[in-house]
Amino acid sequence: MRHFAATPIAERDLQTLLEAAALAPSVGNAQPWRFVRVRTPAVRAGLAAHVDAENARAAGGFADEARREAYRALKLHGLREAPEMLAVFCDERPAAGHGLGIATMPEMLRYSCVTAIHTLWLAARARGIGVGWVSILDPAAVGTLLDVPQDWTLIALLCLGYPAAPSETPELERRGWQAREPLADRLFER
Amino acid sequence: MRHFAATPIAERDLQTLLEAAALAPSVGNAQPWRFVRVRTPAVRAGLAAHVDAENARAAGGFADEARREAYRALKLHGLREAPEMLAVFCDERPAAGHGLGIATMPEMLRYSCVTAIHTLWLAARARGIGVGWVSILDPAAVGTLLDVPQDWTLIALLCLGYPAAPSETPELERRGWQAREPLADRLFER
Repeated sequence: MRHFAATPIAERDLQTLLEAAALAPSVGNAQPWRFVRVRTPAVRAGLAAHVDAENARAAGGFADEARREAYRALKLHGLREAPEMLAVFCDERPAAGHGLGIATMPEMLRYSCVTAIHTLWLAARARGIGVGWVSILDPAAVGTLLDVPQDWTLIALLCLGYPAAPSETPELERRGWQAREPLADRLFER
Repeated sequence: MRHFAATPIAERDLQTLLEAAALAPSVGNAQPWRFVRVRTPAVRAGLAAHVDAENARAAGGFADEARREAYRALKLHGLREAPEMLAVFCDERPAAGHGLGIATMPEMLRYSCVTAIHTLWLAARARGIGVGWVSILDPAAVGTLLDVPQDWTLIALLCLGYPAAPSETPELERRGWQAREPLADRLFER
């Protein structure tokens, strides 16, 4: 099973997605996101091998056998087939923003990177492009593989491409892993 | 100066925003977001007082006097005037999702809450509603003020309302705190 069709993403479209991401809101307007476009085949292969190893380890962590087999049946990344791969890091000590809003919540820098990723994601979907966010990995190991500065934290490893089988329903719901649940169960008042 | 006009947000619109947020992508489809609508005046007042105290402390943290004065001149929250206030928490031990994707990156649960917040934010903007994300606070103290379960982490305290002075330019840019910087400075290749 493939997640992505072989169709490449046009350079202009990729640039548009990145420009949209850079318009995301950020704490103190610090814009702490750092995008690394992964193009070197050997680097890609190293990332895919790392995720495969972490995935095998994660499968072993499910005590329930049916759940473990269901996990193994999922295809959880498209790192070898996606036409584009982006790693998104957070600069934990950005010059921009002058520290506003992070004295007690330094994690706001990382959350700001997530708003950029989600902006890119929605801009991608609006163009028919799919995004997979891979998190079955050791963030520090990925930082080493990509040779980034020490102060950068990996937030996301993203696969981008045109979906092989477009769908409005989340894949984990289609495959019976986890359905959407009612908003009412997640809404409270004080 | 007011951030928000006095116009209330219609119940139906608020519900629409929350329903949009609940469609956000999440790790393992765990939907770990927990929305707390703050309606009790005494609770609101307690939150505003807490943020004022943290804000005074944060101002004292700027060594540079000009920067400290610039910080003090900013209006950094609308907790006393916003027609709606939402606190968003992450359930760190959700039943949904069955642990998929969080073995090595448990922070993915918190990041998933940020995608929900940003979805709500964009849905709000599309309706002319403004959102302020307040982070000058102690997350644990806010959890205590709102009497939520121990396993919930505060991700955001949000003020919602119609902007008193709508603008396409971020307020921190208008006020000379921090301008947007070029994407090119944040884009790398490997």
